[in-house]
Amino acid sequence: MSKIKVIIASDSVGETGELVAKACLSQFNIDESDEVLIRYPYIESEENVDDVIDLAKSKNAIVVFTIITPDLRKYIKQELQAENVASVDIMGPLMNVLEGRTEEAPYYEPGRVHRLDEDYFKKIEAIEFAVKYDDGKDASGLDKADIVLIGVSRTSKTPLSQYLAHKKYKVMNVPLVPEVTPPKELYNVDPKKCVGLKINPTSLNKIRKERLAQLGLKDTASYANDQRIQEELDYFNEVIGKIGCPVIDVSEKAIEETANEILDYVEGRLDIKG
Amino acid sequence: MSKIKVIIASDSVGETGELVAKACLSQFNIDESDEVLIRYPYIESEENVDDVIDLAKSKNAIVVFTIITPDLRKYIKQELQAENVASVDIMGPLMNVLEGRTEEAPYYEPGRVHRLDEDYFKKIEAIEFAVKYDDGKDASGLDKADIVLIGVSRTSKTPLSQYLAHKKYKVMNVPLVPEVTPPKELYNVDPKKCVGLKINPTSLNKIRKERLAQLGLKDTASYANDQRIQEELDYFNEVIGKIGCPVIDVSEKAIEETANEILDYVEGRLDIKG
Repeated sequence: MSKIKVIIASDSVGETGELVAKACLSQFNIDESDEVLIRYPYIESEENVDDVIDLAKSKNAIVVFTIITPDLRKYIKQELQAENVASVDIMGPLMNVLEGRTEEAPYYEPGRVHRLDEDYFKKIEAIEFAVKYDDGKDASGLDKADIVLIGVSRTSKTPLSQYLAHKKYKVMNVPLVPEVTPPKELYNVDPKKCVGLKINPTSLNKIRKERLAQLGLKDTASYANDQRIQEELDYFNEVIGKIGCPVIDVSEKAIEETANEILDYVEGRLDIKG
Repeated sequence: MSKIKVIIASDSVGETGELVAKACLSQFNIDESDEVLIRYPYIESEENVDDVIDLAKSKNAIVVFTIITPDLRKYIKQELQAENVASVDIMGPLMNVLEGRTEEAPYYEPGRVHRLDEDYFKKIEAIEFAVKYDDGKDASGLDKADIVLIGVSRTSKTPLSQYLAHKKYKVMNVPLVPEVTPPKELYNVDPKKCVGLKINPTSLNKIRKERLAQLGLKDTASYANDQRIQEELDYFNEVIGKIGCPVIDVSEKAIEETANEILDYVEGRLDIKG
């Protein structure tokens, strides 16, 4: 295992640099017993840059930076090189390509991606919508939703709804349990906005056993019992058949992967069979 | 306004490239009437790479790529250059720096950042927690939460809770309304995990008026009335004073910015006064 330290230096929050760093670090066997990522947000002066470089030298850290203002970007690059600190400019290369392609100069405003514009408020509204209409609590959400996710317990309905909310879709999710009749409105909703989340019994059993252990319950509960699971999945197939909507398999998939498939379908790039 | 097209080419979902592209594009005045970002996820063969390059040439698009497997990365770079397509390698530069610093070779597994490991399940649990304990619905969450957010209506409690959940913190939020006594347990919770969300009356009034308009209600409702707002904020100050926890100002801030301040405080980097 390797010991690595990465400083995320940004003139805004530092989210972009952090995501790139995490994606790259996941490819290595890194010792995480000690802090790996160190955030240094809101850099706005040469003194801040000097601090970052001192910190990098003292910790033998790599500097990953996202700096938008041209003077500070020039300064950090020059100092990193002068002080021989390993570093990567995350936004610079694409900024340069874009500058060559656009008619006007960039705004050069740090944090502009977080501006409170229409898209921002659409995202906030979608996040609140997904919380409000989680777990099929209120059938009145069915009409207003852009996407309706349907599945048995432990098919990632809640986190998927949140992930899609971050992409500005209003998502309602509806749990299926044989003993509880789903809202009758479910059969009147446009099936084109419904997606069933299927899962294989083995995966589901494993997830539910882990869930029970987490809750401090014995795995002899019917919740994680093969026969019960099959009964629930049969019921799922029956309801989905009636709705006539497509089905996506969530077995062994991360929410980011399933969400990507749902987006492909919803945005018309993928044709999935009902 | 400039017309720009960017293809996000990835051997996984393409989230990392998309975030970098969005952060850079936000710095330009781009015409968004036509699709700007085109996703091309799950690239796994030279044929897929050829498709991306054909698409880029036909649309005069810039290619932003995150390709982990060395052979494909080499191939896409070589073809992009041969075909004279403008492009940016998002992960390559940092991968190279990390390879120079680590003892073992990278895994070279596309999508490894989405692996279903302990961190992944902690994140999912935190997302579900924030949904379950949203809006102070169940006081039993106070003990289990890592962070308790307290504020009047429209101070971004729900989206902030979700944002922090993505960072694996279990967050409960508690709304304050003068007419409703908050759960008495709130005064027994460790004040170190509580954060009050304050807002200036003018910002709050503006947000609430917009909210009412969105709901199709008239802004004469007391919800967006100056006197009522002051009454709520006085009540907020009274409760927060009793709890003795710090306060963060959310006025005119994006959730990413407020969340960053909360993280600085919770992770011990920032000392904010109560």
